Amino acid sequence: MVFVFYFVFQNGTKKFWDFMRTHDSVSILIFNSSRQCFVVVKQFRPAVYMCEMERHHPQDFQSKDQDSWCPLLDPLPATVGVTYELCAGIVDKPELSLEEIACKEILEECGYDVPITNLKRITSYRSGVGVTGSQQTLFYAEVTDQMKTGEGGGQPEEGELIEVIEIPLQDSMKFAFDEHFPKTMVVIFSFMWFQSNVALGMQEK
Amino acid sequence: MVFVFYFVFQNGTKKFWDFMRTHDSVSILIFNSSRQCFVVVKQFRPAVYMCEMERHHPQDFQSKDQDSWCPLLDPLPATVGVTYELCAGIVDKPELSLEEIACKEILEECGYDVPITNLKRITSYRSGVGVTGSQQTLFYAEVTDQMKTGEGGGQPEEGELIEVIEIPLQDSMKFAFDEHFPKTMVVIFSFMWFQSNVALGMQEK
Repeated sequence: MVFVFYFVFQNGTKKFWDFMRTHDSVSILIFNSSRQCFVVVKQFRPAVYMCEMERHHPQDFQSKDQDSWCPLLDPLPATVGVTYELCAGIVDKPELSLEEIACKEILEECGYDVPITNLKRITSYRSGVGVTGSQQTLFYAEVTDQMKTGEGGGQPEEGELIEVIEIPLQDSMKFAFDEHFPKTMVVIFSFMWFQSNVALGMQEK
Repeated sequence: MVFVFYFVFQNGTKKFWDFMRTHDSVSILIFNSSRQCFVVVKQFRPAVYMCEMERHHPQDFQSKDQDSWCPLLDPLPATVGVTYELCAGIVDKPELSLEEIACKEILEECGYDVPITNLKRITSYRSGVGVTGSQQTLFYAEVTDQMKTGEGGGQPEEGELIEVIEIPLQDSMKFAFDEHFPKTMVVIFSFMWFQSNVALGMQEK
């Protein structure tokens, strides 16, 4: 759903603004201490795929002003639309706390049944300030192999096709800054946060 | 401009997807070494403001399906739509390199005339994977007071109303994790990146 809003700024400037309504969300940095790895998700993102299509075939996008359009000529492989992300979910159940929603997403997407007390709030921030402006809250969850009760993978009936990926701790900073693996900012941030806030403590033990 | 795309996944699932076309972008972590502070921008974001309006007055949004709508009853102060962000800009000039666009934005938004050789590429990542999927490239720029040639503030004629803010290095990690200052993820990340990659080197000198 897209809205157009009209603002009058203090200096008298008038401006229309596209605004896409989205929900707030939670993201979770998951660290499996049994296997000393991060657990992230890899998924196909249509918006990322379309960006890459436009980058490679800009001429196909120049005169497209219809609302619905399906590119057929010379498509790129689906892999160009795949990104690595933290386990995440939208906040659409007012009866659940952010922590409860985070635990539910960890189970659905990654297959770990995590006690809520294992969650640590890292911080919150604004995502997509130009378009959606919603708030995302980031948690850290330590899990063990014993908590693994399922395969994860999201909810295929809702169109979620999620692959669960393990990134060994020892490779994580290399992965974070390797631009060959498309990823979101919060993946890079949270791996670095772990180094400063958790890994140092582990070494001292 | 919003598009609706139609995908058929490998498992046969069909799905429509809203997709908002946006440009790739650059963000720049600016550190003023003369004043030992970060230079960030503070601006009003209509999308953030509308999110806060919806959070406080959800009932006003429930039956709004028209395309254009202007809330008048009981508005919140504009300050709830203000966020702290890195200096940034969209990549909309094919004849300019990412570095050239970054320098142009530093001058327009923050008033520093920075030689292109002062820019260091940190990394790139995907922003707004659910909606826009565009790529953002992050740079680091060290500036000095001698490079300050203007006030910055963006281009008011294009509706940009940007306030240039200095965050002292010594307060920066506190600021990064203080949720009372709404900010984007990349502000938090880049301040932390600086601590690990630049500040340590400064101490050794």
